[in-house]
Amino acid sequence: MKTQVAIIGGGPSGLLLSQLLHTRGISSVVLERKTKQYVLSRIRAGVLEQGLVGLMEEAGCAARLHAEGIEHDGTLISYGDEMFRVDFIEHTGKPVMVYGQTEVTRDLYDAREKVGGQIEFNVEDVVIQGADTEAPKVRYTVDGQAREIDCDFVAGCDGFHGVSRQAIPLEVRREYEKVYPFGWLGILSDTPPVNNELIYANSPRGFALCSMRNEKLSRYYIQCSSSDRPEDWTDAAFWQELKRRIPDEQANKLVTGPSIEKSIAPLRSFVTEPMRWGRLFLCGDAAHIVPPTGAKGLNTAASDVHYLYNGLRDFYENNSTNGIDSYSEKALARVWKAERFSWWFSSLMHSYPDQTPFDLKMQVAEIEFLRTNKAAQQAMAENYVGLPY
Amino acid sequence: MKTQVAIIGGGPSGLLLSQLLHTRGISSVVLERKTKQYVLSRIRAGVLEQGLVGLMEEAGCAARLHAEGIEHDGTLISYGDEMFRVDFIEHTGKPVMVYGQTEVTRDLYDAREKVGGQIEFNVEDVVIQGADTEAPKVRYTVDGQAREIDCDFVAGCDGFHGVSRQAIPLEVRREYEKVYPFGWLGILSDTPPVNNELIYANSPRGFALCSMRNEKLSRYYIQCSSSDRPEDWTDAAFWQELKRRIPDEQANKLVTGPSIEKSIAPLRSFVTEPMRWGRLFLCGDAAHIVPPTGAKGLNTAASDVHYLYNGLRDFYENNSTNGIDSYSEKALARVWKAERFSWWFSSLMHSYPDQTPFDLKMQVAEIEFLRTNKAAQQAMAENYVGLPY
Repeated sequence: MKTQVAIIGGGPSGLLLSQLLHTRGISSVVLERKTKQYVLSRIRAGVLEQGLVGLMEEAGCAARLHAEGIEHDGTLISYGDEMFRVDFIEHTGKPVMVYGQTEVTRDLYDAREKVGGQIEFNVEDVVIQGADTEAPKVRYTVDGQAREIDCDFVAGCDGFHGVSRQAIPLEVRREYEKVYPFGWLGILSDTPPVNNELIYANSPRGFALCSMRNEKLSRYYIQCSSSDRPEDWTDAAFWQELKRRIPDEQANKLVTGPSIEKSIAPLRSFVTEPMRWGRLFLCGDAAHIVPPTGAKGLNTAASDVHYLYNGLRDFYENNSTNGIDSYSEKALARVWKAERFSWWFSSLMHSYPDQTPFDLKMQVAEIEFLRTNKAAQQAMAENYVGLPY
Repeated sequence: MKTQVAIIGGGPSGLLLSQLLHTRGISSVVLERKTKQYVLSRIRAGVLEQGLVGLMEEAGCAARLHAEGIEHDGTLISYGDEMFRVDFIEHTGKPVMVYGQTEVTRDLYDAREKVGGQIEFNVEDVVIQGADTEAPKVRYTVDGQAREIDCDFVAGCDGFHGVSRQAIPLEVRREYEKVYPFGWLGILSDTPPVNNELIYANSPRGFALCSMRNEKLSRYYIQCSSSDRPEDWTDAAFWQELKRRIPDEQANKLVTGPSIEKSIAPLRSFVTEPMRWGRLFLCGDAAHIVPPTGAKGLNTAASDVHYLYNGLRDFYENNSTNGIDSYSEKALARVWKAERFSWWFSSLMHSYPDQTPFDLKMQVAEIEFLRTNKAAQQAMAENYVGLPY
């Protein structure tokens, strides 16, 4: 098989890149390890920056997003029983869009299928060959049958555990990592959200987040021990703990119900450098992970897609390698900003097992500073709605 | 002896309080453990916020400060060979004033002496009695002779190692502390400053600060090991290390010379709560210490003096205890903000022995964010010039 860009990974990054390239007549094949159904069963974040919304528009996939997505003009931050709001519109003129990552992925599959985009599922044993030549190959098997793609470029959109990053020789790669000493226990619940905007809650018992998918579907999280398993937490125990971590006023009006989904995610910061090796480009989780505080995961993947898409256009439309040559540097510059914000916001909001009384005072003083200082709120809002590409 | 306010400690806080009270006809006696000459030989910070300048004006001691002090409209921050400026005027409309703490103290001594203010030197064995009654006493000895002051109030301005804090029962006190794993080696040198504004330098070899007392007298610091002694560092070794930590352009034009003074200061964050017990009030270093990054030590002492002075005026002029009753709460609210800023700025600029490669990247990303984001610069500038009282 021949294509211009072989895309490894059928999650939102790979699909978005594939669809964007399609709008410019650049061919691609997407290889996905699992089934479409499996990909669409993964519950992920749901706060989209304007940059990602813009890419979805450019890809022609934004109709449902605009019809069903909910614009949020600010967010709430609580500590103990105190709560304050950071107004995104006041500080940046931009809202964020609440729309589940699963829905983004579904819209992209629909769009790809509508135009006959090539996606291979159940792909195994992926090997990237000759990424350092002008004629890379991707070999893989489906149902035990060996297949091969000849391509100009390979986009590694296959996540943290994917093969793409591993295809870059170890001596070239530098990796940076921080593992946080706790996880997030999240539930999805068929109940109206406790508040029409998100509430990020710092409490002496740990962090909590009141989020949502839409007006009838809530998503709540509580910081939990790294060793906890979802089955350790009954729904009743979850709701009780959540109520203790948010202000009384919110706890009192919280509508509880059975969980539809319950899972625990570890928190990690991770970056690999460079994000390009020869004709292989890493995108999204394949190159970097952020802790979920502030919802920068999907949005940072989208900024990678933006830089790569424009680099590839530059190559095919203008016969210039400038865009792909600067891909790693440009993408990483923005990645590190998102990493900093996610690390800072995580540090601000969670309880840490080794926190001294002084450290706790610093955390409260920083939240107080954010509450009372307009410049601090503006810096936070600019990061939250997304720094410019 | 009888007075209205017994002030323990003849450093800048105690003297400023004494002089301010004098302008309102409130009597005080200052007790100092050392000699005036000793107090004036202590080299300390030299960046004054407008709030402190205003208090010096109110105390009638600001003439020389205005004549000889140098207004700084911004500061420089470097990392490696990159350097950028944070403009205080642009972001806050206010400058800071470079004028040595020793000069402040000298002006206050001159003012106190001019009006016959009572200052006892070489005071030993100070004991505060009855701070929890309406008639406190301060007992002490001078030259082996026992003396006693009957007073309405006691102001503890005797620094971190003073007796005032210890006079508050342990079961009442809560103390918060962070000891940083490094010190500052500082020299004073009879050379023109390398730059007309301060340079705070982050480098892979550690922090450095290019500061000054005036246009002919420079003050430079480098981060050093906690176990270093001043005699471990020749002047030549100091200059060589300083040049390695600041941008080449500055290193090349640095004028070196023999050190007039060389000393090492440990870095510590410390706060005791409450700052009032009965009729005893703690001011400045007696209640809190900040690391010197950002020069908040003397300025935070000044904000304590402001609150205490106004509280005592309220008591004597309006027969109201509101001001003294809210002293601890008001003073601490501002103290914690200064503690946060000093801790943040220290964390941003120093090398830490346990820093991981990821931590280092976060430090650089945060400096980069400060370089490129106006809101972050504004938040920094507002803290640097001094948050409102």
